[in-house]
Amino acid sequence: MPEVSNRGTQMPASPIRKLVPFADAAKAEGVKVYHLNIGQPDLPTPQKALDSLKHITRKTLEYSHSQGLLSLRETLCKYYRRFGVALTPEDMLITTGGSEALLFAFLACLDSGDEIIVTEPGYANYLGFAKMADVKVVSVTSHIENGFALPSAEEFEAAITPRTRAILICNPNNPTGYLYNREELHRLRDIVMERNLFLIVDEVYREFVYGDEPFESALTMRGCEENVVVVDSVSKRYSECGTRIGMLVTRNGEVRSTALKFAQARLSPPLLGQIVAEESIEGTAAYSRECFEEYKARRDFFIKGLNEIPGVYSPMPQGAFYTVVSLPVDDAEKFTKWCLTDYKYIDPEWLSLNPEYTGETVMFAPAAGFYGNPELGRKQVRMAYVLKVENLARCLAILRDALKKYNNQAQPSH
Amino acid sequence: MPEVSNRGTQMPASPIRKLVPFADAAKAEGVKVYHLNIGQPDLPTPQKALDSLKHITRKTLEYSHSQGLLSLRETLCKYYRRFGVALTPEDMLITTGGSEALLFAFLACLDSGDEIIVTEPGYANYLGFAKMADVKVVSVTSHIENGFALPSAEEFEAAITPRTRAILICNPNNPTGYLYNREELHRLRDIVMERNLFLIVDEVYREFVYGDEPFESALTMRGCEENVVVVDSVSKRYSECGTRIGMLVTRNGEVRSTALKFAQARLSPPLLGQIVAEESIEGTAAYSRECFEEYKARRDFFIKGLNEIPGVYSPMPQGAFYTVVSLPVDDAEKFTKWCLTDYKYIDPEWLSLNPEYTGETVMFAPAAGFYGNPELGRKQVRMAYVLKVENLARCLAILRDALKKYNNQAQPSH
Repeated sequence: MPEVSNRGTQMPASPIRKLVPFADAAKAEGVKVYHLNIGQPDLPTPQKALDSLKHITRKTLEYSHSQGLLSLRETLCKYYRRFGVALTPEDMLITTGGSEALLFAFLACLDSGDEIIVTEPGYANYLGFAKMADVKVVSVTSHIENGFALPSAEEFEAAITPRTRAILICNPNNPTGYLYNREELHRLRDIVMERNLFLIVDEVYREFVYGDEPFESALTMRGCEENVVVVDSVSKRYSECGTRIGMLVTRNGEVRSTALKFAQARLSPPLLGQIVAEESIEGTAAYSRECFEEYKARRDFFIKGLNEIPGVYSPMPQGAFYTVVSLPVDDAEKFTKWCLTDYKYIDPEWLSLNPEYTGETVMFAPAAGFYGNPELGRKQVRMAYVLKVENLARCLAILRDALKKYNNQAQPSH
Repeated sequence: MPEVSNRGTQMPASPIRKLVPFADAAKAEGVKVYHLNIGQPDLPTPQKALDSLKHITRKTLEYSHSQGLLSLRETLCKYYRRFGVALTPEDMLITTGGSEALLFAFLACLDSGDEIIVTEPGYANYLGFAKMADVKVVSVTSHIENGFALPSAEEFEAAITPRTRAILICNPNNPTGYLYNREELHRLRDIVMERNLFLIVDEVYREFVYGDEPFESALTMRGCEENVVVVDSVSKRYSECGTRIGMLVTRNGEVRSTALKFAQARLSPPLLGQIVAEESIEGTAAYSRECFEEYKARRDFFIKGLNEIPGVYSPMPQGAFYTVVSLPVDDAEKFTKWCLTDYKYIDPEWLSLNPEYTGETVMFAPAAGFYGNPELGRKQVRMAYVLKVENLARCLAILRDALKKYNNQAQPSH
C-alpha cells in the first residue's frame, strides 16, 4: 500500500476544527453548544446579493476569465477608492476565497524552502498554506500584555535570514483583533524596503474596526508599492463565507502575472460567488453600517464581560471579531475539550420552563495552534464573537461556571 | 524590488490561453473567431439546476463542511452506483473543481521533488499543478499513429525511478479523446501494485463515451483499492464549468484524511456550486442523453470532415470532446497564430448578404504544450468540438482555406 506524502503527514490539523468531533458528540446527547471557535458570522448575507441569484439569466454557468469577471474588478476599484486606494482592474486577481489568494501569494513570492516571517499568534491556516507551498514559517512573537502590538523592528531583523523572502501580517488581526497603526505599518515598510522583501498583508477584516484609530491599508503606503501584496475577501464583510470569493491585489506587475499563471492552471474562480460579491459591494452601505454596529456592540459587551470573570483577561480588540483570551487553567486545550466532554451548564430556570432541556456548553479554539511555539498559547484560547449579544451573555455565564467547576475538581483525567 | 519565485518564473503559461491576446485583437477588428481552443461547452446548464438558484431560502451563504455538503456526497453515491461503483459519502471529498482535486492528490500522494508519470500528450494544466506542488512530471509518450493508445508496460517501467510515486492518466483522455480499455487499465493496475505506486485517474469526461467499448472506472478494479485516486468534476458533464465543483474519490483512508487536512486549510468548497451540482446530478437523465447525442453527432461530423482536408489527420476519438490533429504545416503554433493575425476567411455569399461582415477565423490549442517534449507536438493542435455542427462546418471550411493560403505563401514572418 503506497504511503501518503510526508508533507501530508506533517500538515497541521486545523486547531479550529480538531475538537469538532467532541462538539458533535455533545450535540448528539442533546447539549446545546455555542460556537465561539470559528469565525462563521451569524449575520445574514445582504438581501440584494441573495436576490441576485434569482435574477441570473445566463443559460450556461461557464468559466469566467481566470483573473475574474471584469465587472467585479471594476466594482472593486470603486470599493477600494473609499479607502483612499486608487487601483485599476488590472491590479487585482479574483481568487477562490482569501485562502487561494494566500496560496498564490506564497507560490508567487517564495520558493520551496524559503522563509516567511509571521507574527504569532497568527491565523492557523497560514501554517497550512505554508506547508502546501513548502515554505518555512518563522514566528515573531506578539504578547497579550501589550494587546498583541507589532513586535519591534529589532525582533523582525533578528528573524531575517538569507532565505527570508516575505513578512506576512493580518490587519486587523486574526486571532488577536489587534489593529496595526500607521507607525507600525511604516516600521514594516522600512524593513521590507531595506531588506528587499515582500510584505503580504491579509486585510479581510478591513471594515471591522471599532476604535478612533482609522484603518490604514498597506496599499496606501508610498515607496513600497512593489513590495506590497494584499490578500482580501468578501467572506466576512458580507457574511458570505460560502461563496469563496477573495482577491490578490498588488501593484507589482511581476507578482500579478505570475499569480495569473497559477490562476490559469485552475481555470476560473467561482462564477456564482462573483455575481453575489459584485451585488454585495454595490449599494450595501446601510448593510455594512448595521453589521459594524452589531459587531461593535458585541465586542463592547463581550470583552467587558470576559474581564469580569476572575482570572480571565482579554485585551480590548480594535478590529476583526476575534480576541485571544488568557484563562486561569492549566491547559486551555484540555479545558476546551473538558467543556465538551465532561461538563454541561444547567440553568435551573430553563429546566423548569422546558423539561427536555439537557444543558449547554461553549466551544473555543485553543490558542496553542496559533503559535509557532505552542507552549506560548497553552493558557489561551481564541474566541470569535460572532453570536448575538444574548447568546454571548449565555457564553459568559457558562464560561464563569465551567472555570469554577474545572478548577475545583481533582486534576481531570485524560 | 523583490523578485518573484523561480517556480513562478518556470510556471508554464497555459498553451490553451497563450494566444488569446491575438484572438482578442482579431475580434477587436470585427473578425469572428471560432474557439476550438478551449473545452468550454456551449450547451446549456440543466434548467433544473439553474432553477435551484431561484429557490435558495438560506439567509446566510455560510461555509459548508470542508469535505463538502453531506447531501451532495450522498447524491454522488447514487450517481457512482450507475457506473457499478459502490461508495459511501466518506469516500469522497468535494473540491473546487477537478483542478483542486488534482492539486490535493499531488500534495497528498507526493512530496516535493517526487516524480509522477503522465502520458503525453497530456492535459497541460497537469504541468501547472505539478509546478505548484513541486513535483516532477515524467512523460511516457503515446502516438497519433495508433490513436494515442496506452504505452506498453515496458515503457512505463522504463520511466520509473526511486522517486516515482504515482502514475496519472486521464480517461477518456484530454487532449486526445482516447478511451482506455479494460486491458489497458489492468496493465496500469499491475504496475502500480507491483511498484507500490498511486494510480491517479482523471475521469471528468466519464459520460462522454461514444463507441461500443464501455467506460471502465478505475474504481471498479479489484485489488488496487488503496492505490487508486480518482479525480472527478461536474463541470463538463452538466456544462457548469463556472460553478467549480469537483471531487477526489478514493478508498484509501490515509489519502482521504490527508487531503481533508489540505481542504480544511482552505475552509470550504463553493456552497452555491454544490447546490447546483446536487440538482444537476439528480433527475437529469434526459439532459445527459441529449448532451451525449449532441456531442456524438458533432464528433462524427467533425472528425470525418477533418480527415477529408488534404494532409490533415485525426484519429477517431472514442470519448471526451477533444481530438489531437496532425496538420500539414511547418509549425502548428505558428500556423495558429497566423490564423489570428494574418488571415481571415471571407465568404462572398455572407458578404453579399451583410456588408458589415469583416471575415472569420478559427483558433486551436497548439499541441506542443501538451507534450513534455514540445517537439513531438510541433505539427499538431488540439481541437475541442464544443460548437454546434453548423459552426463546426464553418470551422472546417476555414481550416481548409487557411491551410491552402498558409502553405502557398512565402515563409510567413513574425
